[in-house]
Amino acid sequence: MALSVEKTTGGREYKVKDMSQADFGRLEIELAEVEMPGLMACRTEFGPSQPFKGARITGSLHMTIQTAVLIETLTALGAEVRWCSCNIFSTQDHAAAAIARDSAAVFAWKGETLQEYWWCTERALDWGPGGGPDLIVDDGGDATLLIHEGVKAEEIFAKTGKLPDPASTDNAEFQLVLTIIRDGLKTDPQRYHKMKDRLVGVSEETTTGVKRLYQMQANGTLLFPAINVNDSVTKSKFDNLYGCRHSLPDGLMRATDGCAAALKQAGARVIVTEIDPICALQALMEGLQVLPLQDVVSEADIFVTTTGNKDIIMVHDMKKMKNNAIVCNIGHFDNEIDMHGLENFPGVKRITIKPQTDRWVFPDTKSGIIVLAEGRLMNLGCATGHPSFVMSCSFTNQVIAQLELWKEKSSGKYKKEVYVLPKHLDEKVAALHLGKLGAKLTKLSKEQADYISVPVEGPYKPPHYRY
Amino acid sequence: MALSVEKTTGGREYKVKDMSQADFGRLEIELAEVEMPGLMACRTEFGPSQPFKGARITGSLHMTIQTAVLIETLTALGAEVRWCSCNIFSTQDHAAAAIARDSAAVFAWKGETLQEYWWCTERALDWGPGGGPDLIVDDGGDATLLIHEGVKAEEIFAKTGKLPDPASTDNAEFQLVLTIIRDGLKTDPQRYHKMKDRLVGVSEETTTGVKRLYQMQANGTLLFPAINVNDSVTKSKFDNLYGCRHSLPDGLMRATDGCAAALKQAGARVIVTEIDPICALQALMEGLQVLPLQDVVSEADIFVTTTGNKDIIMVHDMKKMKNNAIVCNIGHFDNEIDMHGLENFPGVKRITIKPQTDRWVFPDTKSGIIVLAEGRLMNLGCATGHPSFVMSCSFTNQVIAQLELWKEKSSGKYKKEVYVLPKHLDEKVAALHLGKLGAKLTKLSKEQADYISVPVEGPYKPPHYRY
Amino acid sequence: MALSVEKTTGGREYKVKDMSQADFGRLEIELAEVEMPGLMACRTEFGPSQPFKGARITGSLHMTIQTAVLIETLTALGAEVRWCSCNIFSTQDHAAAAIARDSAAVFAWKGETLQEYWWCTERALDWGPGGGPDLIVDDGGDATLLIHEGVKAEEIFAKTGKLPDPASTDNAEFQLVLTIIRDGLKTDPQRYHKMKDRLVGVSEETTTGVKRLYQMQANGTLLFPAINVNDSVTKSKFDNLYGCRHSLPDGLMRATDGCAAALKQAGARVIVTEIDPICALQALMEGLQVLPLQDVVSEADIFVTTTGNKDIIMVHDMKKMKNNAIVCNIGHFDNEIDMHGLENFPGVKRITIKPQTDRWVFPDTKSGIIVLAEGRLMNLGCATGHPSFVMSCSFTNQVIAQLELWKEKSSGKYKKEVYVLPKHLDEKVAALHLGKLGAKLTKLSKEQADYISVPVEGPYKPPHYRY
Amino acid sequence: MALSVEKTTGGREYKVKDMSQADFGRLEIELAEVEMPGLMACRTEFGPSQPFKGARITGSLHMTIQTAVLIETLTALGAEVRWCSCNIFSTQDHAAAAIARDSAAVFAWKGETLQEYWWCTERALDWGPGGGPDLIVDDGGDATLLIHEGVKAEEIFAKTGKLPDPASTDNAEFQLVLTIIRDGLKTDPQRYHKMKDRLVGVSEETTTGVKRLYQMQANGTLLFPAINVNDSVTKSKFDNLYGCRHSLPDGLMRATDGCAAALKQAGARVIVTEIDPICALQALMEGLQVLPLQDVVSEADIFVTTTGNKDIIMVHDMKKMKNNAIVCNIGHFDNEIDMHGLENFPGVKRITIKPQTDRWVFPDTKSGIIVLAEGRLMNLGCATGHPSFVMSCSFTNQVIAQLELWKEKSSGKYKKEVYVLPKHLDEKVAALHLGKLGAKLTKLSKEQADYISVPVEGPYKPPHYRY
Repeated sequence: MALSVEKTTGGREYKVKDMSQADFGRLEIELAEVEMPGLMACRTEFGPSQPFKGARITGSLHMTIQTAVLIETLTALGAEVRWCSCNIFSTQDHAAAAIARDSAAVFAWKGETLQEYWWCTERALDWGPGGGPDLIVDDGGDATLLIHEGVKAEEIFAKTGKLPDPASTDNAEFQLVLTIIRDGLKTDPQRYHKMKDRLVGVSEETTTGVKRLYQMQANGTLLFPAINVNDSVTKSKFDNLYGCRHSLPDGLMRATDGCAAALKQAGARVIVTEIDPICALQALMEGLQVLPLQDVVSEADIFVTTTGNKDIIMVHDMKKMKNNAIVCNIGHFDNEIDMHGLENFPGVKRITIKPQTDRWVFPDTKSGIIVLAEGRLMNLGCATGHPSFVMSCSFTNQVIAQLELWKEKSSGKYKKEVYVLPKHLDEKVAALHLGKLGAKLTKLSKEQADYISVPVEGPYKPPHYRY
Repeated sequence: MALSVEKTTGGREYKVKDMSQADFGRLEIELAEVEMPGLMACRTEFGPSQPFKGARITGSLHMTIQTAVLIETLTALGAEVRWCSCNIFSTQDHAAAAIARDSAAVFAWKGETLQEYWWCTERALDWGPGGGPDLIVDDGGDATLLIHEGVKAEEIFAKTGKLPDPASTDNAEFQLVLTIIRDGLKTDPQRYHKMKDRLVGVSEETTTGVKRLYQMQANGTLLFPAINVNDSVTKSKFDNLYGCRHSLPDGLMRATDGCAAALKQAGARVIVTEIDPICALQALMEGLQVLPLQDVVSEADIFVTTTGNKDIIMVHDMKKMKNNAIVCNIGHFDNEIDMHGLENFPGVKRITIKPQTDRWVFPDTKSGIIVLAEGRLMNLGCATGHPSFVMSCSFTNQVIAQLELWKEKSSGKYKKEVYVLPKHLDEKVAALHLGKLGAKLTKLSKEQADYISVPVEGPYKPPHYRY
Repeated sequence: MALSVEKTTGGREYKVKDMSQADFGRLEIELAEVEMPGLMACRTEFGPSQPFKGARITGSLHMTIQTAVLIETLTALGAEVRWCSCNIFSTQDHAAAAIARDSAAVFAWKGETLQEYWWCTERALDWGPGGGPDLIVDDGGDATLLIHEGVKAEEIFAKTGKLPDPASTDNAEFQLVLTIIRDGLKTDPQRYHKMKDRLVGVSEETTTGVKRLYQMQANGTLLFPAINVNDSVTKSKFDNLYGCRHSLPDGLMRATDGCAAALKQAGARVIVTEIDPICALQALMEGLQVLPLQDVVSEADIFVTTTGNKDIIMVHDMKKMKNNAIVCNIGHFDNEIDMHGLENFPGVKRITIKPQTDRWVFPDTKSGIIVLAEGRLMNLGCATGHPSFVMSCSFTNQVIAQLELWKEKSSGKYKKEVYVLPKHLDEKVAALHLGKLGAKLTKLSKEQADYISVPVEGPYKPPHYRY
Repeated sequence: MALSVEKTTGGREYKVKDMSQADFGRLEIELAEVEMPGLMACRTEFGPSQPFKGARITGSLHMTIQTAVLIETLTALGAEVRWCSCNIFSTQDHAAAAIARDSAAVFAWKGETLQEYWWCTERALDWGPGGGPDLIVDDGGDATLLIHEGVKAEEIFAKTGKLPDPASTDNAEFQLVLTIIRDGLKTDPQRYHKMKDRLVGVSEETTTGVKRLYQMQANGTLLFPAINVNDSVTKSKFDNLYGCRHSLPDGLMRATDGCAAALKQAGARVIVTEIDPICALQALMEGLQVLPLQDVVSEADIFVTTTGNKDIIMVHDMKKMKNNAIVCNIGHFDNEIDMHGLENFPGVKRITIKPQTDRWVFPDTKSGIIVLAEGRLMNLGCATGHPSFVMSCSFTNQVIAQLELWKEKSSGKYKKEVYVLPKHLDEKVAALHLGKLGAKLTKLSKEQADYISVPVEGPYKPPHYRY
């Protein structure tokens, strides 16, 4: 797509695939609202007082129907919003169109190139001359990364006059990041410093993004406060567990009808690879085998990476697989599967069966494997991600984190560190979702509460409780 | 669509949605072939001897990717084939295009009107002046029905000169059937008699179609032999059980992302309505509740009909449902859900969210329900039906039944009755599928076989065994 | 035990382990009555008319608490009853004591020798000078076998004066059968002929016993009518499936606490050995592996035979197993596991850990396996068998079969053949059990019944339906 | 039993039910050793260096077969051991006999009165004139409680000369505790002070016991260091989850055969009562209903308390239950079920069906409920508790905690506070159990370890990780 910003009749910027899908997007957003009781409860509880009045929020998070409900919760609370997706395949174009038309500046479409992806991220961060956003909603940390790298480059430039050199790295994606920063530096050498200075904080919702934040905190390089939304129970235990339980088979079924025979009906026989002995023993107790990849590589039908680590399935592994074995990733980044090695394997042939479903054939064996979503997040690339109800849990944490950052923006309560939401807010997120599923809680009596040493009104568990 | 037949450069007739999808169809057919070991084994075993040489086969069966593999198995064995779908929403247009271009005359597209549907059925039966097909592959029995109704009308016409009168029925669909027969009678008053005379037999694969056949056998009106493929174990226990286990949630997930939260992850709490006390007790023993619809109509989130009976969920039931309750059918016909009552409810409003996903809003409550695939087969209307492996079991039964009918066409072995495939062929279909799943059978010794009174080579069970 | 008959104060014969357990047995019988709604419903419906008035019934069926409820249902309907167990380990001694004291002549205790076992069977058949029972309730067919062998021997003796010779067979158990018949012949050469002449029929409830009956029918040697209760849906699908699902792990847990770790919590990884390709494919579709014994013999932790066939696990297999692998049988006879080979293996050492739990150590490896219930029915030998509710389904079939035989004793309705209960009685058995589990059936309307071609009042399925 | 200590021929004290069961106990201990790889690995690794040489260890922990393997691991490492059970019903008498004969001083039998229970506890703590034990292995905290209460009473006595007065409390069990302390004070007013002074520390393995320890730490009254073994992942997640998954249904099945129909085969429909909204939402996501007790009290078949709280099921709840509803507790203490209210209900009748299985009949309705193990720990009272493999995880944590306390006895590393085992020891416990289940870990490369910021050799998770 031509990388030029468009404008609504009201003057709001956007860049989406097809504005005519806005009505369809709106209908699906309305369906999702019924399934996202936590976000709708936030609108009811906080909407009247407009707590985000005056706040500029930039989001870098899969631009789906569910995210649309999040965005419109933020605007319902008074915020102005700019948004990009955090994955090149995860945007739902009808969701992007509806939001672009009705609610916020959106820069996102399904099937971005990496160059387009970083252009979108930069657009979402660019609020014009007055600096960047007040708050960031991040997923994976790319918006946060761009600001940190930008500030770093500006400091070097200020000291040495040296521009960042994309040729200094052979990581293709990082070359694009450096190019964007270099081009920005030429027009405004304080661009990212202004962003940093204005920023109140970020709330981050992935394991990967949180890991990056803690590393920066440990190195002393974190530039603004961060709330770790990922480790709320109602996020981590729900999104990671119940979300993936839905979206992984959904993606597999939509991409390759056949495979689901094994996975869904037949209650697929699952073998786990694991480095952590505790997790390995838990898997065993659940009846799963624990074996290294090399022991099963030529027998399995489906390979799923979900480690948050890199170099999990290499091209030499793929060569040993059965014909039409399926290889896919539900981790955040695409370096779990060695796509680089696969693409560069001599004589390998890529046959695109349909978007996000490629058969790669090795020249000597004529045997092929099927790679989903080009090794990226297949549950969003090949299906529609986690169900709305689960995302409502995650996103209600985001809203509450953003509210907290904004309320305390001048109080000094949050330093340049990473914080977790307190347990009573986690319990609140859960409580907001119970009614929709018809649950009724039992009430603790005062005597019972004293007996187990908790307040009658909660929190009900000690900090180290594992749920 | 304009109801005019088109022709390939080679002169074969067809009518499909979009011939440019043929390449895409071909790629998915190749994927499916890997998952359909029974059909591919038939090609290997029977292909060289061309047993269907000279046979004309008409099929009325969902025109999907899996059916494409069936069709090309029939042609690989020497048959000439014409095909239509047996449901207005079940065709996969890329499958139809690939077959139309490469292998057989196809008349089918996703989203036919009922008038288009019966036009397609008639096209598939029309082999030109020399009469109709030698064999029919039927699903639901509409091709068989058309011939029986046609013959009946021709007899009346021959005796009385009276043409069938569409106005004589208020069943909208049957009016279309009578119209087609009436128009045919005008040009050739022996059209269906010629078809009947040529026909060797039909193989039928659904409970619904089989029920119709046994009724005709009981009434003495069945015009040609029929093989009941539905009651092969490798069909009924596999298609109905393992197929639906895959395609029902798949359809629900693709149609309405939200609902799957309940059904899939949360291991939905299932309540069964049942008329048969034995089946009810089996459900109870599996931990399911058994209650009549009226006891749960205002509490359930998802309603699925799968009875093969009619009038299961009426419009007055739908009025009592929760907002956004999902109502769908995986039975063959669309009279399980009272679509007629819903459409004619005063003031009801239909909002199409996306194809095959409609929200119907009642005027007084403003509360809506979501109906999938217009009350028809939702697993094919909203998703891609059963997985290839399961369909390979069903379709291998079809191929073997067709082979048997054709081989015995002049022997008089089959009268105008309904037959089931013998158990050793059922066991053969199963055996053809074991290798793909890595299974190895244990061998019975002669002593052991004698001890349990079965032949060493099978069949291994008495006729009344229930599997 | 000394094989002498004892008598209650009322004069009824018995031989049980410990009469002082009668009170305990009575308490557990009362518990079981609440769980056996079918039998209790029979007492309510049929008790007042005393349909078994004048009938002598002999039962050969595991003398458990649940069987006690069956026996007292028979007596509540007017019958006089004599009973023995059909397995040397399956008697619950408190059940036997309660029945012996209160209701019927019982000859059974846990841990009979084979000689004691056949003595008990003969006692149960011996109703004094007037011949044997009118009716037999059989499980496995040993009571039926004894009469058939007796009649055969008496015929030879009448013709040739030759007594049966135990030394003519090397089957140790059959030697005991011949000895009993020989000794009987000496005192009354028409003993078994008188039994046969009086007998109205037998109802048999196991696969094994039914197999024997059909073999005799095929050979023309069946001496009286038989009702095959085993193949009622409410027996075969319930006892075999739901019963074993309970009693197999129960037996494993009670015998060897440790093993349950794998089987129950960890959702044990199950591998099936199978000779029938259809059943093999069903297993695969349920996510189970299908492999021959030799492929897994050195890796599995638990081996369970359940084939009804013989020579399934031989001593050379056992030698290859892991240390402390568990070997057990839930089939009817003890020839599935090669106990003879194990006992006679040179140098093998048997260590009895507790009753019915033996560790067998091979001399060279010092490695041992654990055999439960001496290779016999472990779910009764090591635990308490199927739960009462499931047995209520089985036994209600028995009561109904016995009622039918008795009612038609003079009508000639039943020849010397094997019969299955008609489907409407099967549905009745199911219906009697629904209320206890809180189920409510949906009612078929007349229109719906006609549409699917069944009577409104059932039966609801065609004869070939597989459930 | 007469409360007098007996002595082995070697002079070691004991009091058990039946010394003749020692051989049987030894055989089952040998079976369990195969299933407890963690403990056996401790013997191999630490045995040669005799780290517990000179250490006196008192244990208050269910005297089962599995505990016997723990005790003999402690003695194999050089310790001298005295033991009592921590529940009146949980002792397995053959285990107690084997240990008493072969390895340690044991004071425990199944079915102690409360008075006998505290006598046993005192015996286990009494090492003669030189004071008490060096280390305590505690379960529930009763040994720890007795010392703390003893010290408190001695301090009051020293200051005021006042003896503790059992009549000062109406808690029947605490009256017994005060009586024992009072009687001890009369003979040695420094008895518990001497114990406290000698004590190096305690390791505690239950939620209940740990809760008591943290309360004492908070109040500043904790007298010696404590290691919280309960919150090791390999304890809490394994014992609580996998252990109960085995032992709860096992107990139900052994106590009341009938009920298991619902729970095991039928995959019982489970309803959860919950006070914590997060746990409630987790339950819902797993497909369980969440409702307060009063909503379901008259419909459920089985009630299980497992809260660690009190007053969960009161007598007025029990009155509303179905006839023969089962009521049981798997929490540590017997105050979850209102046994006091039940016993004192006017006209209530108790019928003991077998030990630990009582039917309580209310006078007006004649309807009864079945209470297991008198409202105490039913999985040990009615069955044999968690399987050996799971207990091996728990007990290996105990051994490692005891080793750590003993090693650091003079270093001052541990103050009078509660400590959790460090994560690398938790991972070690897990690693010791993998081989037995045939697992192989994947190895992290240096690059991968750096990428996710963990050491190559672990620990592999951040401290807040929830497993």
